[in-house]
Amino acid sequence: MSVKLSQSETETTLLINQFKNCREQTEKICAPLELEDYVPQPIADVSPPKWHLAHSTWFFEQFLLSTFKQGYTVYDSDFAYLFNSYYNNAGDRVLRPNRGLMSRPPVRDVLAYRDYVTKEVLDFIGSGEAEKEALDILELGINHEQQHQELLVYDIKYILGHQPTFPVYGDTFNLLQESQEQRWISMEEGLYAIGFSGNGFSYDNENARHRVFLESYQISNKLVSNAEYMEFIKAGAYQDFNLWHADGWDFIQNQKLKAPLYWHQTGGEWRQYTFSGLAPIDPNLPVQHLSFYEAYAFAEWKGMRLPTEFEWEAASPQFSWGQLWEWTGSAYLPYPGFQKAAGALGEYNGKFMVNQHVLRGASVATPQGHSRATYRNFFAPPSRWIFSGIRLAKTK
Amino acid sequence: MSVKLSQSETETTLLINQFKNCREQTEKICAPLELEDYVPQPIADVSPPKWHLAHSTWFFEQFLLSTFKQGYTVYDSDFAYLFNSYYNNAGDRVLRPNRGLMSRPPVRDVLAYRDYVTKEVLDFIGSGEAEKEALDILELGINHEQQHQELLVYDIKYILGHQPTFPVYGDTFNLLQESQEQRWISMEEGLYAIGFSGNGFSYDNENARHRVFLESYQISNKLVSNAEYMEFIKAGAYQDFNLWHADGWDFIQNQKLKAPLYWHQTGGEWRQYTFSGLAPIDPNLPVQHLSFYEAYAFAEWKGMRLPTEFEWEAASPQFSWGQLWEWTGSAYLPYPGFQKAAGALGEYNGKFMVNQHVLRGASVATPQGHSRATYRNFFAPPSRWIFSGIRLAKTK
Amino acid sequence: MSVKLSQSETETTLLINQFKNCREQTEKICAPLELEDYVPQPIADVSPPKWHLAHSTWFFEQFLLSTFKQGYTVYDSDFAYLFNSYYNNAGDRVLRPNRGLMSRPPVRDVLAYRDYVTKEVLDFIGSGEAEKEALDILELGINHEQQHQELLVYDIKYILGHQPTFPVYGDTFNLLQESQEQRWISMEEGLYAIGFSGNGFSYDNENARHRVFLESYQISNKLVSNAEYMEFIKAGAYQDFNLWHADGWDFIQNQKLKAPLYWHQTGGEWRQYTFSGLAPIDPNLPVQHLSFYEAYAFAEWKGMRLPTEFEWEAASPQFSWGQLWEWTGSAYLPYPGFQKAAGALGEYNGKFMVNQHVLRGASVATPQGHSRATYRNFFAPPSRWIFSGIRLAKTK
Amino acid sequence: MSVKLSQSETETTLLINQFKNCREQTEKICAPLELEDYVPQPIADVSPPKWHLAHSTWFFEQFLLSTFKQGYTVYDSDFAYLFNSYYNNAGDRVLRPNRGLMSRPPVRDVLAYRDYVTKEVLDFIGSGEAEKEALDILELGINHEQQHQELLVYDIKYILGHQPTFPVYGDTFNLLQESQEQRWISMEEGLYAIGFSGNGFSYDNENARHRVFLESYQISNKLVSNAEYMEFIKAGAYQDFNLWHADGWDFIQNQKLKAPLYWHQTGGEWRQYTFSGLAPIDPNLPVQHLSFYEAYAFAEWKGMRLPTEFEWEAASPQFSWGQLWEWTGSAYLPYPGFQKAAGALGEYNGKFMVNQHVLRGASVATPQGHSRATYRNFFAPPSRWIFSGIRLAKTK
Repeated sequence: MSVKLSQSETETTLLINQFKNCREQTEKICAPLELEDYVPQPIADVSPPKWHLAHSTWFFEQFLLSTFKQGYTVYDSDFAYLFNSYYNNAGDRVLRPNRGLMSRPPVRDVLAYRDYVTKEVLDFIGSGEAEKEALDILELGINHEQQHQELLVYDIKYILGHQPTFPVYGDTFNLLQESQEQRWISMEEGLYAIGFSGNGFSYDNENARHRVFLESYQISNKLVSNAEYMEFIKAGAYQDFNLWHADGWDFIQNQKLKAPLYWHQTGGEWRQYTFSGLAPIDPNLPVQHLSFYEAYAFAEWKGMRLPTEFEWEAASPQFSWGQLWEWTGSAYLPYPGFQKAAGALGEYNGKFMVNQHVLRGASVATPQGHSRATYRNFFAPPSRWIFSGIRLAKTK
Repeated sequence: MSVKLSQSETETTLLINQFKNCREQTEKICAPLELEDYVPQPIADVSPPKWHLAHSTWFFEQFLLSTFKQGYTVYDSDFAYLFNSYYNNAGDRVLRPNRGLMSRPPVRDVLAYRDYVTKEVLDFIGSGEAEKEALDILELGINHEQQHQELLVYDIKYILGHQPTFPVYGDTFNLLQESQEQRWISMEEGLYAIGFSGNGFSYDNENARHRVFLESYQISNKLVSNAEYMEFIKAGAYQDFNLWHADGWDFIQNQKLKAPLYWHQTGGEWRQYTFSGLAPIDPNLPVQHLSFYEAYAFAEWKGMRLPTEFEWEAASPQFSWGQLWEWTGSAYLPYPGFQKAAGALGEYNGKFMVNQHVLRGASVATPQGHSRATYRNFFAPPSRWIFSGIRLAKTK
Repeated sequence: MSVKLSQSETETTLLINQFKNCREQTEKICAPLELEDYVPQPIADVSPPKWHLAHSTWFFEQFLLSTFKQGYTVYDSDFAYLFNSYYNNAGDRVLRPNRGLMSRPPVRDVLAYRDYVTKEVLDFIGSGEAEKEALDILELGINHEQQHQELLVYDIKYILGHQPTFPVYGDTFNLLQESQEQRWISMEEGLYAIGFSGNGFSYDNENARHRVFLESYQISNKLVSNAEYMEFIKAGAYQDFNLWHADGWDFIQNQKLKAPLYWHQTGGEWRQYTFSGLAPIDPNLPVQHLSFYEAYAFAEWKGMRLPTEFEWEAASPQFSWGQLWEWTGSAYLPYPGFQKAAGALGEYNGKFMVNQHVLRGASVATPQGHSRATYRNFFAPPSRWIFSGIRLAKTK
Repeated sequence: MSVKLSQSETETTLLINQFKNCREQTEKICAPLELEDYVPQPIADVSPPKWHLAHSTWFFEQFLLSTFKQGYTVYDSDFAYLFNSYYNNAGDRVLRPNRGLMSRPPVRDVLAYRDYVTKEVLDFIGSGEAEKEALDILELGINHEQQHQELLVYDIKYILGHQPTFPVYGDTFNLLQESQEQRWISMEEGLYAIGFSGNGFSYDNENARHRVFLESYQISNKLVSNAEYMEFIKAGAYQDFNLWHADGWDFIQNQKLKAPLYWHQTGGEWRQYTFSGLAPIDPNLPVQHLSFYEAYAFAEWKGMRLPTEFEWEAASPQFSWGQLWEWTGSAYLPYPGFQKAAGALGEYNGKFMVNQHVLRGASVATPQGHSRATYRNFFAPPSRWIFSGIRLAKTK
């Protein structure tokens, strides 16, 4: 939210292009889908693709057009109710677990809604009438839609990956092998500056930059691989309570978990659902789709630990990242001096700062231009449908 | 199941025509839907239309073609798993509450599956090779699909009626006003013959015909109207536990019920969702969409009672019926000498003979040719999405 | 409730003696308990013994003393709230599943409450001032307390039987072997008079006597034994869905049932908890502690069925009964002409006439004088902590 | 666990006295109870007093006597199963929510068990044969029992406070008024040493002492009072989602909360259950029995925040504390270099380091000698039956 654009024409043009690209990209992600795939919500966490298409549009309508554009006519007054996510300040809404029941409006109406709002935004911004506050919201709206692009990828994978027929989506979001040898990066004790600084967009939760004292530590230059995780499984780790948090042990017992999400064992052999269908486990790829509980237990089994988010940020210039979000040992809490925005946008981050853990980095599903070393992603510890992995750390 | 056709050519031709009409009718019911409407399962009771299309087809494939047709090639081996409903004998299946998660196969594949099986059945029956047992299964399959046609109407109403936009379906399944004056039909005590007899199709649960002794009673010639039910609501009946079964009272408390399903109160005025959209309550139409608990409580409030299914059947020649299924006071239990069929088809009726109540009659959603006075419909007492109404009785 | 006493002094004296014996008997049942055993409520169905002691007392206070005795002073006004069971008409009450949370009042206060009410009732009845209606309530109260005596035995067995240490209670309520050979009693078709007639106490649900036509049938002279039920288990019946109602199959799957309640398998051998502790299964004793679902499945496995409650009553003079309540195939429904009483006592039976099955007979836990051939006991189909068994029938 | 006693005779004598006092104190806390109060478990969090008496004893038997004393005879082998809490390494156990179902062993057997183990421990330690490791366990066992003494007070209050009769316990654990004026203590930015150092007992979670950098902040010298919290209620805070975490808002909605635990509104006036019975709210006492969510929302409403646990510890020498545990803004996470102990005792703290928040300080229910400024208490955010309060902080 702390956009610091000098609102020159160049910057406005840049923003318009970002906006156009963003809107196109969302629809491109959906291109391989059948119309029927836009509808289901298999679990509360996973929203129907149709909902993402509409909700990211509603955000621009609600917070930009209705608020700032003179004489703007709402596309359909029911849509605010249908496609609000969690903004209590923006009125009533369909309860989250009921998103999959809404077969109406049909997808073509949602696409028409998208076109309408896209055009209205372009008209408004192109007219030069938009003041700085509106442009800030536009930028926030783009970042918001980018976040939903990433969730869209997660949710599509979940929907397709739970069809008994394991359909193929395409190879867009495949992981790459990490070719370098594993080694330990040593970090000295000292005060480190943590949090966003500089120009460009950032979220309120990355601010303000502040000092954190770190004891010396070591952190791995690469992610844990499928081969290493397979050893953990074979060592009986899913049956050894000593490796797990009490809540984690309950979780894997209740859910009867024995492996990462999308892993299936048939005839003794493990395979995993990928966007290209069911495939053998590639031992050299990073292990993916783990809950925080599993990431923690793996580190425990290795006699190591997950890095804190501060350790991660301080060391991040020294390793490559961006294939998978990396669980940290840090709970999601406000930085010193954190202030949430007034009104509905104040609900963006602050109200989730309890019962969540921070992930750092980015993933193959993260839109271009949406990642930075200070970015704080967060999910509840049991989350497995996200693109999550493990980087190990240890106290020197 | 007790088909008593003499399998002359004429009768086979008749059956073929019934089969064709039946297959077409199912698709006709779906015609007003958007493609997205085929997918959701808003509650466990309500199946996606796509599922009905496929399941009624699977029944012919599983029990007729795979069993009796030499060299039959199954359309897609996954479909048996996907579209089996509750036949444990026919193998594993998608759990009922998960039907709405299956976006694949898309509707066009299900329609292709329908065409394939329809054609295969016509080939098989047209060839004259089908023996009597196969023709019996064909007849059962037609009746089975007709039952699903009725459920399809219920489920479509539920799906559309739970869209915040209350979309219009069309006026096909509207109720008619019952023009006659209310009066009491008096029935004398005595032995009555109950259950199916004669030629034509019947279900195993209607057999065998047997004698039941009835004390004298009176039964109404017409259904309870919306106007009468409105009085019941206005009298505070939903707040008076004395009128309700203990389970019924818990049910309406937990669900916070104050009126029949699809009734909405806005600004003090009641309206109801119909296939033509949201509309004022027509006081002269029969009241519809009641649970057994509500039907019972209404009778209790009138100082009367629901007829037993035997009273209903004995008196049925003396009143008109067929607009709504009528809750009876009878639990769904086997008739004396009831025998369930061997194998998977034995799961059709018998295993549901506990915790259900019998409804008699038929409804505007019942397919032509699928109703008779001995027909025993049954649902669990809380069911409200069915086309149910009330006929009163009293002890003389 | 249809008491037909001519209220002579002799009959009043008789009633007083019944009352005294009844009050003493309740406390005698509790004598072997530790004080701690009076408190827990392990499942919603099982009430703490302390609660039974107080509730049966509250019934006399609420419906007899407070209603009929001039100037009666309530023992403690909180007790009405604490010890009302399900009489909505008698005001608010502790919710059923919370009975086990009430450590106060302590047992000694409950016993003092019992003494106070017993004495007040004796004073009131002894004074000769009680009118017929009050004496009817007294008689109902005695029968009510007798029903709770039986439940007390069930609940004590459940509480003790779920202690890891399987404590001994005593041998008061042991089953006896049925020495006669198994044979089939043949009953002719015809009209039978069903329901209570004559003098003496009966419940409203046994009235009115009416005619039922029965087809000819056969019914066993003795109960199914542990040995026979063991064969059923060994034949894999708990794994064969064809034998079960759909609801019954779900029930045994969800609860992971493999044998009657209180049966424990250790080292391949079955033992059962009895009031004398953990003991080997006696093959010659009647099998006990079955749900309706299990009784039905057993009959199905034998190719037979459970008798209806009408068949049971018509044939009952020809066999001995009284060791265990016998599940019938009849749902619990009102007899023709059934009328429930006005006010709170009208909640006694009628409001439970849905989702329950009838058991006939009596058990070793039934108080003396509380059984008759027309008695209609009823429980929900999953109930297993009751003293239930199986008598088979078949269509001739 | 990091006990650093030089095991001189004096120190052993001291330990023996601590042990004796501790064992007596536990029983003293239970003295005002009725025998029936020892049994119930009204919610999963609240254990029966009987269970605490036995479990704290089992800890000494399991980890001290059975492990270190030659030829020790276990009191009753069933007790290990009955009274293990959560030590997976120590074998099977009664599931936590089932503790209230165990009426056996009766309280007198549990007291006999206590006497037996107390005597055995005194013999063992008095004999001088106990090595250092055993003495460490003894010290841990004393601290463990002291923790259970505090829980015992919470649980007794919950059990008594949920009796409809609100019984009196006594005035032992009453809060005192904080007489000083409210003022802000200013703390400078800088590196602070956090965590335990020095001699004496500490838990593994307080170690190791390490450096934390704090930005400058202000912290209140006193706790928030009932009067201040009443203003928050009256301002409609329980109806304003903007003040709450998303999870907190769900929590108060689902539980229908409007005030702290034990507050009851009758006739417009608030009263609260105290150990002396139901009493008016004293405006000058600290507000008590709040969840983390409520503490957070209160701070939010004041435009302030909760201190982190580090801020609390750094400033603690400058204010008085010890009446109530104080919710901090810190999630419960391991300190740098945290190592959990090997074996069962390693389950003491580490496995709970997720989904919990830290409380600092102590309460009126904390046993003497069991509090220190580095002590890290922790509970799940919804916990309200604990003795919790609020101290505010703000960024300078």
